[in-house]
Amino acid sequence: MSEIKVVTNILQTNDEITSKNKKLLDEKGIYVVNLMSSPGSGKTSLLEKIIAKLKNEINIAVIEGDIYTTKDAERIEAQGVPVIQINTGGACHLDAEMIKGALNKLTLDEVDLLVIENVGNLVCPAEFEIGEDIKISVLSTTEGNDKPLKYPLMFEKSGAIILNKLDLIEFTDFDKKEFYKDIKSLNANADTFETSCVKNQGIDEICFWLKSKIQNKKIK
Amino acid sequence: MSEIKVVTNILQTNDEITSKNKKLLDEKGIYVVNLMSSPGSGKTSLLEKIIAKLKNEINIAVIEGDIYTTKDAERIEAQGVPVIQINTGGACHLDAEMIKGALNKLTLDEVDLLVIENVGNLVCPAEFEIGEDIKISVLSTTEGNDKPLKYPLMFEKSGAIILNKLDLIEFTDFDKKEFYKDIKSLNANADTFETSCVKNQGIDEICFWLKSKIQNKKIK
Repeated sequence: MSEIKVVTNILQTNDEITSKNKKLLDEKGIYVVNLMSSPGSGKTSLLEKIIAKLKNEINIAVIEGDIYTTKDAERIEAQGVPVIQINTGGACHLDAEMIKGALNKLTLDEVDLLVIENVGNLVCPAEFEIGEDIKISVLSTTEGNDKPLKYPLMFEKSGAIILNKLDLIEFTDFDKKEFYKDIKSLNANADTFETSCVKNQGIDEICFWLKSKIQNKKIK
Repeated sequence: MSEIKVVTNILQTNDEITSKNKKLLDEKGIYVVNLMSSPGSGKTSLLEKIIAKLKNEINIAVIEGDIYTTKDAERIEAQGVPVIQINTGGACHLDAEMIKGALNKLTLDEVDLLVIENVGNLVCPAEFEIGEDIKISVLSTTEGNDKPLKYPLMFEKSGAIILNKLDLIEFTDFDKKEFYKDIKSLNANADTFETSCVKNQGIDEICFWLKSKIQNKKIK
């Protein structure tokens, strides 16, 4: 696992660097996911499940964004795929410059799917493009069905929305009907998935869907 | 319920306005709590329980910070206490200027305890002083015991830390021993509480503790 300390003096604008990241990743035919949610929604657990399922078929690499610690990167590394840790040193989101630095440390010719796990934060990460093909947001049932309307930007910008911790829904007052109504009002075109990492539920569906996205990008 | 749309052109620095907020609130002898956590940790539910318990003894007012919607403020208003809604219009935290505007709308002579419920975000709100006596951070068991080390600033700066959703801990892998070890390493002086709003657990303890804090400020 390589670690990157982020230099705060960013000279180029985020959009300019995003375009360069995107160009490089497109040239390499890598499908890039920007995975976002609140802390504790289960991003890393989902990623562990997806990697375990897909790693024998597809070359996966991961960029782990955290404010401090390498806890998540260690979990991903244990899955046997390349992982670059970005420690933002306080910053509440990843930006394109940080991703540029991480891309320099990966052997991109050997990657089909790059998952960038953003800092746990339902607000700020959604404001920064970093060179991704798709944003995927995760909400867990224990957070409450009111969150998409309260924190709309992330859900509006996501190409897919995952409702996680389905195993705990019976212990909460999470209203799925309201949730899907709100999601539809914010972003009618988003693909949606329901998952439980504990019960291994919904992982196959996400992996199947991801494979079609990866395939589609390779063809282009 | 009054609503405030936030003007983004802030001329004075946050610290200057914080000092003025603090001076005004001290003169009025109001004990001020800055309540912070991730989205969905249960801040509003805890506040509902605390208000229901204390409102006949103590004059409480609430400032509700949300990016969009008045969902939380409506819940608090139903408890029969004054509430000011701040909609940040995208911003990921409350700042002193927003609080200044809200204080102008409250009858401060009739307030003993002011609770400011910050935007749900485990990162940015901790960076901004707004005139509070104490920061209280909430973590729910379903978010995982690794969060204090991953998002240390909020826990370092908090005078009290509440572990909420105790009723769900048995369905998670939350390790309380690790949690308290990490909390101690970050902030040995913080008071800690364990709560469940569903089971009405720990609310009496928080209310008793809050009353002593309010009393202490009145005496000064």
